[in-house]
Amino acid sequence: MPTTLKDIARATGLSTTTVSLVLNGKPHRISKEKCQLIKETAKKMDYHPNRLAVGLIKHETRTVGLILPDITNVFFSEIAKGLEDVLWKHGYHLLLCNTNDCHEQEISAIRMMRNAMVDGLITVMSSETIGDKEHQTFVALKHMKRPVVLIDCFNESGGFSTISLDNFKATYIAVKYLVSLGHRRIACICGPLGLETNDNRLRGYTVALADCGIPFEKSLIYQGDFHYQSGYDAIPVLLPQKPTAVLCLNDMMAYGAMNALNDQGLRVPDDVSVMGFDDIFFSQITSVPLTVICQPAYGMGQKAGQVLLAELSDHVQPQKIVFEPTIRVRKSTKAIKPLNS
Amino acid sequence: MPTTLKDIARATGLSTTTVSLVLNGKPHRISKEKCQLIKETAKKMDYHPNRLAVGLIKHETRTVGLILPDITNVFFSEIAKGLEDVLWKHGYHLLLCNTNDCHEQEISAIRMMRNAMVDGLITVMSSETIGDKEHQTFVALKHMKRPVVLIDCFNESGGFSTISLDNFKATYIAVKYLVSLGHRRIACICGPLGLETNDNRLRGYTVALADCGIPFEKSLIYQGDFHYQSGYDAIPVLLPQKPTAVLCLNDMMAYGAMNALNDQGLRVPDDVSVMGFDDIFFSQITSVPLTVICQPAYGMGQKAGQVLLAELSDHVQPQKIVFEPTIRVRKSTKAIKPLNS
Repeated sequence: MPTTLKDIARATGLSTTTVSLVLNGKPHRISKEKCQLIKETAKKMDYHPNRLAVGLIKHETRTVGLILPDITNVFFSEIAKGLEDVLWKHGYHLLLCNTNDCHEQEISAIRMMRNAMVDGLITVMSSETIGDKEHQTFVALKHMKRPVVLIDCFNESGGFSTISLDNFKATYIAVKYLVSLGHRRIACICGPLGLETNDNRLRGYTVALADCGIPFEKSLIYQGDFHYQSGYDAIPVLLPQKPTAVLCLNDMMAYGAMNALNDQGLRVPDDVSVMGFDDIFFSQITSVPLTVICQPAYGMGQKAGQVLLAELSDHVQPQKIVFEPTIRVRKSTKAIKPLNS
Repeated sequence: MPTTLKDIARATGLSTTTVSLVLNGKPHRISKEKCQLIKETAKKMDYHPNRLAVGLIKHETRTVGLILPDITNVFFSEIAKGLEDVLWKHGYHLLLCNTNDCHEQEISAIRMMRNAMVDGLITVMSSETIGDKEHQTFVALKHMKRPVVLIDCFNESGGFSTISLDNFKATYIAVKYLVSLGHRRIACICGPLGLETNDNRLRGYTVALADCGIPFEKSLIYQGDFHYQSGYDAIPVLLPQKPTAVLCLNDMMAYGAMNALNDQGLRVPDDVSVMGFDDIFFSQITSVPLTVICQPAYGMGQKAGQVLLAELSDHVQPQKIVFEPTIRVRKSTKAIKPLNS
């Protein structure tokens, strides 16, 4: 058991009240000698104030909850690291929960965070959380009566702070970049429809095509699920449409697409250009390093922490932070060969 | 603010004592009607017992701490996920801390976990924690006076439960496998010397070579740091020694070695076989899927949770769990061509 005020009282032969007055920095008339004795004994006995007791009085636990779809997804673990680095500096702890990208577990996780009395909560919603389910999640979040910050995936903000990328602009500039290389048959491997993040990216894709005077073809779109295998499975379906470039709405699906193209005997980027979205670490070290739209996961985690701490300590109003997308050109994209050359 | 017993007393017009007796399941003589009213009101007002107050009485927080070198390393995030899945089922929360693989931050993290009053702690020590520094870490861990489980990296157990792979056997069977393919010039890219995990793996390598009658050559060893870049940097140093196979003591260094061989115009496995250690997800999807020694990170995280919970609830003595290594043959290793054929 940790050392208590009683233990120090016993060791010094003084009353618990005396010890408490000194160690809690309350006004008192206790002699210098006794004060010193108490402080030295506390140090020697490795005394730390009981966090639970302090929390009960101050109504705070100095703990922030983080709910993620999957911590083994590098994009999310980088968010966690960015957040944790900020919290650490401010003496806050991070309580972590996975939802396995499942709405029901998300609701349980929010309940658990409330029971754990976190001071605030940061969450990336599961990709199942659409429509009615999103409403249920907002009801649960509002029940917490604590500041909440939503990152990346959400349709509405529910009055909470939000951290996101300008997803529309991201794919818009990506398509413009591919068109500048001469591509006109640009396939897109997207995520689940109805998920705002995904829908905004798809909208960026279609608007950019229109702005470039390229007719939209539904058969160039393949709906994946943001996992590797769906990127792999997309290629045999898309190839008959003869795309010269494939824009993947996350990096994991881009790895799947690159390997599927390779298995079909096609070379990236000589036969088909491939572009990813996120820029997680592995995109630098794939056999053909991946050209990507960057989404600064670590920075978004940091920002989420800063926004939450501002709400907690300075009672700042909820904020809406939007990160600007950038493109990092590596080796998986290439100017198209002119036809009949 | 969350609903309190007082709020329910006010809403029902009953005393706080009456409400407390009913909701805390204490013996009482309160009428059935009043009981029902209290319970229904509690449900309607979304009452949950105050975790801090309960914790103060029971001296428990139902929180388990996890200290990791780097959550963005997939090997560690899989440990975290395995652990979290077990804790979740048992109603425990996970408090997470990164050390950035730095001893000083590890000591701070342990102190933070103690202040957070976690019921128990699971830790993967930083690779800096060797010698005197390891002693300091053990002193800090013992100060917690709580069950501790060490995973993966440690020299001594300090009387705590441990979860590890049989690292000696792992590289022993890996070398035997490579020798069975005809390889005799087997280079090894290792981690920091002095780290028990690494030293045991190196010992497995040297003993297996000796058992196969192959003389040990120091120039075939390259000391890396378990990061991608050191695997990449190893190749130009090792190539003049003409290895036919490279055994890498983690997967990240194997990715570096494969890309460096590729950049030198050598093919894996036709010119050089490469073998990894861990089997993280990306090893399946590298351009040449990686043959690896499997270290079941998710399973080790689960086991760590089970061992800790057994110590917490049944006061089981500390245990020493050793996982058996296995080899997963993919495409990065190949039988050697006979000389002069």
